[in-house]
Amino acid sequence: MVQRTDFEFSTVPASEPGPGEVLVRVLYLSLDPAMRGWMNEGRSYIAPVALGEVMRALGLGRVVVSKDPSLKPGDLVTGLTGVQDYAVVSAKNLNQVDPGLAPLPRYLNVLGFTGLTAYFGLLEVGQPQPGETVVVSGAAGATGSVVGQIAKIQGCRAVGIAGGAAKCDYLVGELGFDAAIDYKSEDVRTALSRHCPNGVNVFFDNVGGEILDTVLAQLARKARVVLCGAISQYNHHPTDVRGPKNYLSLVINSARMEGFIVFNYAQRYGEAIQALAGWLAEGRIKTREDIAEGLENFPETFLKLFHGENFGKLLIKVAEK
Amino acid sequence: MVQRTDFEFSTVPASEPGPGEVLVRVLYLSLDPAMRGWMNEGRSYIAPVALGEVMRALGLGRVVVSKDPSLKPGDLVTGLTGVQDYAVVSAKNLNQVDPGLAPLPRYLNVLGFTGLTAYFGLLEVGQPQPGETVVVSGAAGATGSVVGQIAKIQGCRAVGIAGGAAKCDYLVGELGFDAAIDYKSEDVRTALSRHCPNGVNVFFDNVGGEILDTVLAQLARKARVVLCGAISQYNHHPTDVRGPKNYLSLVINSARMEGFIVFNYAQRYGEAIQALAGWLAEGRIKTREDIAEGLENFPETFLKLFHGENFGKLLIKVAEK
Repeated sequence: MVQRTDFEFSTVPASEPGPGEVLVRVLYLSLDPAMRGWMNEGRSYIAPVALGEVMRALGLGRVVVSKDPSLKPGDLVTGLTGVQDYAVVSAKNLNQVDPGLAPLPRYLNVLGFTGLTAYFGLLEVGQPQPGETVVVSGAAGATGSVVGQIAKIQGCRAVGIAGGAAKCDYLVGELGFDAAIDYKSEDVRTALSRHCPNGVNVFFDNVGGEILDTVLAQLARKARVVLCGAISQYNHHPTDVRGPKNYLSLVINSARMEGFIVFNYAQRYGEAIQALAGWLAEGRIKTREDIAEGLENFPETFLKLFHGENFGKLLIKVAEK
Repeated sequence: MVQRTDFEFSTVPASEPGPGEVLVRVLYLSLDPAMRGWMNEGRSYIAPVALGEVMRALGLGRVVVSKDPSLKPGDLVTGLTGVQDYAVVSAKNLNQVDPGLAPLPRYLNVLGFTGLTAYFGLLEVGQPQPGETVVVSGAAGATGSVVGQIAKIQGCRAVGIAGGAAKCDYLVGELGFDAAIDYKSEDVRTALSRHCPNGVNVFFDNVGGEILDTVLAQLARKARVVLCGAISQYNHHPTDVRGPKNYLSLVINSARMEGFIVFNYAQRYGEAIQALAGWLAEGRIKTREDIAEGLENFPETFLKLFHGENFGKLLIKVAEK
């Protein structure tokens, strides 16, 4: 498990942006389970963050100094700013956002990689068909809550698995999920059988571990298991990861389990953002943010993800403007 | 682990075939890992064999009495005869075979469900592309050996994992695999890195357990893991199955793991048998059968599958004609 002592805070002068670069004042940071993976050694889809480097993070900020004609001071942008007050970033790796169209935190949430992950993972990997049952774990989390709502928009039955009555009430009462299973107080197996009498057609998994095994045992024929993440396992040593014992359910049911990285769909971000923004505007996608304050609270805030303590998209507000 | 005492031999008069049925004298029985699954309780792709029922098996036999116009005495057929000397089977569930085109055992091997499983599993689920690396476990087994040879026909690099030098020599020397890894004497991880320097594009898994985990750790981007079976796990209680700890490699590599049942492709058996028969005739697919004699030796012969003792397609010869 990560802990505060794994991080060192230091104060150094901000670098000067070079040609093509800009200096960004970070306003918000996105806290994502994937960041835990970036802290591990070994081959992955992105290089690990080395010891002593600034911790990688998606951020939203305001351009202070620009050495690129595409951006000017005052512009608002998102990109990999890292966990710091000021960041020097190449302008071509930043996306400009319009503060008039949506509140700023939304650009790190439904209108950012969180929404894109839900969109492409569910629609492209999961291939949900109208009338099918879509189950999502970590359903009250940033990605999970969007997955369930897109499932509803697609004409599917949406069943969320989340921890605690408040989250489950929110899923059904506010977001329009057909059912929610509280893994902290219910037997997930029994509840799944009740809510998915014809089996699970699509399972969007953010959690891994025992919940993955339980859902695997109830797959429908030709089911698709979308592997987005496994937050229950990220702090385990690789040799201690719980592999899904029920994986042979994939054979019995001619089903598949597939992983993806949102970056695979970079060519289609525009289409997705347009759809997500439309659904947000129409009220068909609702969202909430869980916003902590202060860069110095990064370690403790980040840990909330692994204890199921965040409720909605977890962000840190670094500065007002 | 199954044992002889799980089976009871009994002698009863053969039933009379009813309308549409035939009485078949069983000549050969196919011994397949899937049969172990049929002995377990619980929901699967096919009903379990109940206690006291004749053990289900694919067989090849000669029609003795026919109550259906499509078959006459003397015709040779394959179908689910069960582990018995004589079987009454519905004519519509039997396929007639031509003893002039291939030796009889071949019809339970490359020209039967074994070949069909390799064909559809590799080509439809695995989707191998020319130049890609295909790894198969249980490579000297009935299905695995065909998988590797079809991979070569598709222009892929074929790497087999098998137990013992004799099997590995056979794969490379006789079947034309590019490389073989002896899991009994080599470190599979190291050997895989050496033989698959660009990672594994398609893994056709018959084995499960540690070998599955080892290959998962070396997947290439967008790899396909074809789950055919898991012979290392079939005699474990469901709660003791080894789940693949490295399944998150599917996320990192945007890869998928997919199960299948050959029956899914029933509409296309004709196409596949035609292709397989052509490759056999051209010598592009070679095969061997491991034929035991005597119905009474079924339990011990069946167990050879789980101890890696068979070499080629395992059959029992029940009668000469």
